[in-house]
Amino acid sequence: MRAVVTRRGGLDVTEVEAPTPGSGHVLVKPLACGICGSDLHAAQDMGHFVELNERVGVPGSLDPDRGVVFGHEFCAEIVEHGPDTTKALPVGTRVCSVPTLLTPTGVQAIGYSNDYPGALSELMVLQEMLLLPVPDGLSTEVAALTEPLAVGEHAVAIAGLEGNEVCLVVGCGPVGLAVIGALKARGHGPVIAADFSPRRRHLAELFGADEVVDPAVTSPHTRWADLGVPASPLDRAAQEMFGGSFANAVIFEAVGSPGVLHSIIDGAPPKARIVVVGVCMQEDRIEPFFGVVKELELRFAFAYSAGEFAATLDRLAKGMPGADALVTDVVDLGGTPGAFDRLANPGDMGKVLVRHDAEVVK
Amino acid sequence: MRAVVTRRGGLDVTEVEAPTPGSGHVLVKPLACGICGSDLHAAQDMGHFVELNERVGVPGSLDPDRGVVFGHEFCAEIVEHGPDTTKALPVGTRVCSVPTLLTPTGVQAIGYSNDYPGALSELMVLQEMLLLPVPDGLSTEVAALTEPLAVGEHAVAIAGLEGNEVCLVVGCGPVGLAVIGALKARGHGPVIAADFSPRRRHLAELFGADEVVDPAVTSPHTRWADLGVPASPLDRAAQEMFGGSFANAVIFEAVGSPGVLHSIIDGAPPKARIVVVGVCMQEDRIEPFFGVVKELELRFAFAYSAGEFAATLDRLAKGMPGADALVTDVVDLGGTPGAFDRLANPGDMGKVLVRHDAEVVK
Repeated sequence: MRAVVTRRGGLDVTEVEAPTPGSGHVLVKPLACGICGSDLHAAQDMGHFVELNERVGVPGSLDPDRGVVFGHEFCAEIVEHGPDTTKALPVGTRVCSVPTLLTPTGVQAIGYSNDYPGALSELMVLQEMLLLPVPDGLSTEVAALTEPLAVGEHAVAIAGLEGNEVCLVVGCGPVGLAVIGALKARGHGPVIAADFSPRRRHLAELFGADEVVDPAVTSPHTRWADLGVPASPLDRAAQEMFGGSFANAVIFEAVGSPGVLHSIIDGAPPKARIVVVGVCMQEDRIEPFFGVVKELELRFAFAYSAGEFAATLDRLAKGMPGADALVTDVVDLGGTPGAFDRLANPGDMGKVLVRHDAEVVK
Repeated sequence: MRAVVTRRGGLDVTEVEAPTPGSGHVLVKPLACGICGSDLHAAQDMGHFVELNERVGVPGSLDPDRGVVFGHEFCAEIVEHGPDTTKALPVGTRVCSVPTLLTPTGVQAIGYSNDYPGALSELMVLQEMLLLPVPDGLSTEVAALTEPLAVGEHAVAIAGLEGNEVCLVVGCGPVGLAVIGALKARGHGPVIAADFSPRRRHLAELFGADEVVDPAVTSPHTRWADLGVPASPLDRAAQEMFGGSFANAVIFEAVGSPGVLHSIIDGAPPKARIVVVGVCMQEDRIEPFFGVVKELELRFAFAYSAGEFAATLDRLAKGMPGADALVTDVVDLGGTPGAFDRLANPGDMGKVLVRHDAEVVK
């Protein structure tokens, strides 16, 4: 079968052996697959990616010199049931799944395994018990967004909102948009969204952001006082002492590049909660004194639970504003290496989707 | 009167004008005053200290070229009541106070003001309404520890402990010891304390640490699994999925030097809560990826409330194990510049206390 194989040094579209479904597995045909920021980082520096994961204790270490088929954001169609399956979902059913596979050698991360291909291929195996059928009426393209949008669902859960918060989302790429979508789906507001790109700010509006800010023109942090959040330690102390209602700031870091976290720590009002959902794989610099004096709180958020994943698919089926505009670029398998090249400077791109059927729709 | 005056460039013991109590103030004679890490930083680089505070929006900016009399950790004796006072506490009463003064030009931080001397002087003014009488039987020396120990009280409140936590305190200088004391006063345990200094580890034991670790011999982070805390993301996921009780890790960063925070982020088990109570005034480096994958939470803690300050004095009056051993060095006013020099390498020192009565007891 054809697959996009990544090794230390680059991506190739090539022929590889098709996988065989093991006990409890189903064989599926990927229909659509998103490209994730983690894929980009891994493709750019597979050695660093593997080293970081090993240092942090993530199981299922990759060999950077063996081939890897990426692809963990997908919608697929059941082709064949493996042994020990219930066959509850018939062949031909469109499915989504958390990208996890139980194998005789342990848990494998689909999309980051040397032994099992991810969805940038013509065939892959999934765990039958983790499959979620895609509801009729939900497009394959939007169903493939379940995984990246579940990241926003989880980040909002980690934020622990109580209702009196002003939320700022820094960065309106797919991760930031996922956060905005999850916030608005729960009825939170106001939600302020910041991005340098006009196209991404427009996407933020489609996802329901109440206000968008171009940081090149206005720092979003100049807006706190107007939005009812005490902006200095003294203002905060006075408002706590003398009563009156005020809002708290919750800031989502959805960029994941060095320097962004500290710019947030520097600009945040006192007692702000910062949810770090952008995945920065480089070393970063902060000035802890600012965190201390303002008593900030940082909550790092990663991935999602199976329940949050299923809830996201459900939200998409019911209609999530903006979701159908999130895919800004579509390529076929053969166009994947070129898409990786373009994503090195994501600029104003939304989600890039690989469609496996030959006809490229955008 | 004599006072220790700090300017950009150094400390001098010199004659300055005695302060006059304004409306609502009392004139007091400092009896004992601790030297704080913030004092050291300010003395070493007053310009940087002022710049940092201005950038973070702390009011009452200092002029680094005018003199400052440090001293915000004190026990003092009432000498004279100013105008508009109730005189509820008579002349001669020993008192403690949060180091805050209301003046016609705004709130002043006692110990960091160009206009009002801190306790490294023969006389100072305090706010009558903020005075707490020192209970009979509590030594002046231990009463002067109320302020630094209140920092531990506050950090433990910020930690939001629920009872199933294993606590690790990294650094057993005065801040770490304050945290250990507050944890044990509330009955939390086990509390593991880590410090390179044998003397500081001994102090940690006196404050009630259940176990002490020399990081030069054993990383405290190798102990999590033994202490019932799932140590890897996979172990954590398995324990959450398959049930069974397990403990959560809460780690107090009580060093405040560059590099320590990341060593904690690197070693922490998944879902650990890190309370940053050490005040690092330099830029620091972290690798956010570790925070993300392990879903760590960082809570920065600063100072204390008036209630936490009063509760700490109360705890000391009732007897806090270790408190009477915390003072490891005593000097008089004239010996203060030398003590600042020695504290540049605190090594195994506990709290250095300035005693204003000529006779130096240790």
